[in-house]
Amino acid sequence: MHSNNSKQADLESVAAGLRRLTDLLLRVDADDPGPATVADELDTIVAMLENRGGPRLSGVEDPASGRGNALAPPLDVEIGDDGTASATVHLGLPYQGPKALVHGGISALMLSHVLSAAGSVDGEPAVVQELAVRYHRPTPLFAELHISAARADPAVGHAQGTIDVGGVTTVSAQAQIAPPPH
Amino acid sequence: MHSNNSKQADLESVAAGLRRLTDLLLRVDADDPGPATVADELDTIVAMLENRGGPRLSGVEDPASGRGNALAPPLDVEIGDDGTASATVHLGLPYQGPKALVHGGISALMLSHVLSAAGSVDGEPAVVQELAVRYHRPTPLFAELHISAARADPAVGHAQGTIDVGGVTTVSAQAQIAPPPH
Repeated sequence: MHSNNSKQADLESVAAGLRRLTDLLLRVDADDPGPATVADELDTIVAMLENRGGPRLSGVEDPASGRGNALAPPLDVEIGDDGTASATVHLGLPYQGPKALVHGGISALMLSHVLSAAGSVDGEPAVVQELAVRYHRPTPLFAELHISAARADPAVGHAQGTIDVGGVTTVSAQAQIAPPPH
Repeated sequence: MHSNNSKQADLESVAAGLRRLTDLLLRVDADDPGPATVADELDTIVAMLENRGGPRLSGVEDPASGRGNALAPPLDVEIGDDGTASATVHLGLPYQGPKALVHGGISALMLSHVLSAAGSVDGEPAVVQELAVRYHRPTPLFAELHISAARADPAVGHAQGTIDVGGVTTVSAQAQIAPPPH
């Protein structure tokens, strides 16, 4: 018997494979015949899985943190005792905007996600109502990025966060957040 | 002989396959034995493509608009005669935040991208220095989203944009932008 935990491990393993392929595809030589072959193999896999809808595994599908979602880096967000939410991540080519740098929209996505986590109640993320992002300096690909956020003033639902590289803030953000819906 | 154009078509075809798989994976029944098999097949494909680095095809790798990047929806941004940048897109499960709704960070990513395009010079996107996003109402998955942006005042490098669904604005954004670097 295949437990739900091992099903989730399978799903996460496929998502990890898709992430590697997404990355590889951007590094394959333009003269390589590989992609033509791969396209056919993917079609076969897609056909195999299609029309198999059913109950989904929960908590693995988020586009920022979901280990089962190939779009997600994925961010592994931890909430500290003081309520600070943080994640450490390295981003590769699929997240590139300007050459060798993280796409500004990806930085906004990650900050939005961590700010929302900083306002979470019983594990449910807060609703971000307004998000303001400032780009101070370029954020490099392939570097260890530290993303963190904390509620500045719980009474007015305000949170702030940063992306830091080697102790230097590259992007900062502020958000108005509301408690998670019931 | 395989032309560069058909190479790009192969690459885009693989990325499209990865997008379908990423989506399917979030809809497969939790009791399905499929993912375990797929994980092995992906490992084989990854092994085939690995260590084949080389010159890359350009303009297809962007995480918002790149047709060769499986992360990208992809946004197909058009610049109108009046300088307005716009894209129409439908988003599926991989872009979900709250149930049946687009993740707020994904909205920020798309707006950031289209605002940057609105400030482009000779096809080179502008640099976004500050991005402010307001979430007015939920943005649904599976709906036709219209994302557009225009420079409000070129002299001060200010641009504004919206995401609209059925003529109603769900998210709006303002950005300070700088001309693209030379």
